[in-house]
Amino acid sequence: MSNGLTERLHIQYPVIQAPMAGGVTTTELITEVVRSGGLGMIGAGYMAPEQIRNQIKDIKSVVSGGFGINLFVPNEFTISGEVIDIARDTLQPFYDELNMPADNQVTIPDYESATHTFLEQLKVTIEEKVPVCSFTFGIPAEKIIAELKEHGIITMGTATTVNEAIAIENSGMDAVVVQGSEAGGHRGHFLEGHEKSQIGLMSLIPQVVDHVTIPVIAAGGVMDGRGLTASMCLGAQAVQMGTAFLTCAESGAKPLHKEAILQAQEDQTVLTRAFSGKWARGIHNVFIEKMADQQACLPEFPVQNALTKPLRKASAQQGKSDFMSLWSGQTPRLARSQTVASLFEKLIKQTRDL
Amino acid sequence: MSNGLTERLHIQYPVIQAPMAGGVTTTELITEVVRSGGLGMIGAGYMAPEQIRNQIKDIKSVVSGGFGINLFVPNEFTISGEVIDIARDTLQPFYDELNMPADNQVTIPDYESATHTFLEQLKVTIEEKVPVCSFTFGIPAEKIIAELKEHGIITMGTATTVNEAIAIENSGMDAVVVQGSEAGGHRGHFLEGHEKSQIGLMSLIPQVVDHVTIPVIAAGGVMDGRGLTASMCLGAQAVQMGTAFLTCAESGAKPLHKEAILQAQEDQTVLTRAFSGKWARGIHNVFIEKMADQQACLPEFPVQNALTKPLRKASAQQGKSDFMSLWSGQTPRLARSQTVASLFEKLIKQTRDL
Repeated sequence: MSNGLTERLHIQYPVIQAPMAGGVTTTELITEVVRSGGLGMIGAGYMAPEQIRNQIKDIKSVVSGGFGINLFVPNEFTISGEVIDIARDTLQPFYDELNMPADNQVTIPDYESATHTFLEQLKVTIEEKVPVCSFTFGIPAEKIIAELKEHGIITMGTATTVNEAIAIENSGMDAVVVQGSEAGGHRGHFLEGHEKSQIGLMSLIPQVVDHVTIPVIAAGGVMDGRGLTASMCLGAQAVQMGTAFLTCAESGAKPLHKEAILQAQEDQTVLTRAFSGKWARGIHNVFIEKMADQQACLPEFPVQNALTKPLRKASAQQGKSDFMSLWSGQTPRLARSQTVASLFEKLIKQTRDL
Repeated sequence: MSNGLTERLHIQYPVIQAPMAGGVTTTELITEVVRSGGLGMIGAGYMAPEQIRNQIKDIKSVVSGGFGINLFVPNEFTISGEVIDIARDTLQPFYDELNMPADNQVTIPDYESATHTFLEQLKVTIEEKVPVCSFTFGIPAEKIIAELKEHGIITMGTATTVNEAIAIENSGMDAVVVQGSEAGGHRGHFLEGHEKSQIGLMSLIPQVVDHVTIPVIAAGGVMDGRGLTASMCLGAQAVQMGTAFLTCAESGAKPLHKEAILQAQEDQTVLTRAFSGKWARGIHNVFIEKMADQQACLPEFPVQNALTKPLRKASAQQGKSDFMSLWSGQTPRLARSQTVASLFEKLIKQTRDL
């Protein structure tokens, strides 16, 4: 199963654990993926630079390489006091329902501080010599890519359309993750609107492969050896799997989140921007339902994300999944409660049998 | 590439030409597919029973078998004079733009006549001993399936979710076509709403395969040997390809329609119910754009279909694609202007090389 990309990434199998943000990618999850022969990824989008440095050191104390980091490219956003007031009013009944105080203490993020954090995250990535750095929500500045490459760090972008993949290749990045409409969590589109970027992997992979020369990594709905082999037939050189790793024993996802996926059907996920201000796929729940009519007038990412964070946290603490972001791809029926080692064992066997 | 399904269907390759309705599936297209080793299908949803009989006779004069027919299962619908008046008013500016008289002459279909036509279509299918009969928009009555099977006709249903596939298996049908969100033309969902039935093939195929015992046929975005092989890896026993055949020389699609697909990018198709009252995927154009706000209040299928038919026809006659239904899947970049024989030749070579 080795190819140009696996050799470049120094991994045995063309399997990348998706860099799920928000506490899912524990050191245990990442190091177990590495030990099993895949690429473990830190979902560092929301992490403070020092928190990232500590996790990298933890990972390095267990494995010598085979891991990477994902960062969110900051997108400019506007902060309107009026929009924030409306959003707070909209969220207040949910705060009340969870017996929580009003969220007036929430610090509203701004673009300058987001950019500062991003540069600090990059600094740690370079200082700690993380082998791979992938990006979501866009393409970083040319000099950032150049600097990462100077330090021998392999760079990967995230695309949802052919044009986005071409832009990533033109930026000088080494590989492109193509995110099909099946994928759970945040949509990575950055050139076109949300509506134009819902391309299924069966369509997306071959069209991208025909238009770029850098290796293509398939993401979205892939859960086992069948999806891996199918993606390779379509021209991908590796797959990036999220939901399949999220329900593993080593993942840091909340038990309620894991349970929701294990019980879900393929037709129960929806796209929403109610949680963060950016479109993302998750299992339909009370919060998504009640916010359905508000999609158009929400604050942008990461403002809405900051406003709903206390709500999501309290919901989990109170043992209610009603207000949690239950990110999941469209293949929850194939999710298992298992160890990473067991996932790899079955996947490799299945791939060999096909 | 033979398997249980290809043997049952008496075809050499696991490739089914999608039964595209509206004049695409000419006798030439179907017989060339049959001669190339695939299953040719009459898209008979909108055809009068005698028209169907004539085409079957034409096909039989060229090939001895290896073809089938697709019928639309009539769904009950309401006809409200008020809704029709609003729809007529909404469409009037488009009629004016094409210098056409008002559409007051359009016969509004009713459920009873639709059901009568469906039964007549079935009668012809049985009398003419068509080898295969597939259905879209639901499951026909138990006695219809039983009668077709008594006459040795292989029956196939269309599903967009696991539960729909299970219902089709339980109905006694012989195989199920699973339609991914990538697919062009009408959505085949019948148990759940439109929103819940947008599952990408990478997710849909393995989840259905794990829940039914009848053969699964993959439809949506498959255009070449890569898509065929990938679908087989995921557990399908055959693929059904629409857009790939639509742009073939032998297809009856209008030249403007073929050209629109050949020029399109993967992010230019959208779902709309503006043309027929049922959700369908096609290339974005003026009509879809202008009707975007009316989606919720349109008459149901097939009423809206009848109301827009003169408009679509005049648009094509006037050489304007603005008001035509340019159905296409999400892989238009892989469409070619070629013969059916050439499509098969390349597909088989590509499949063998993978």
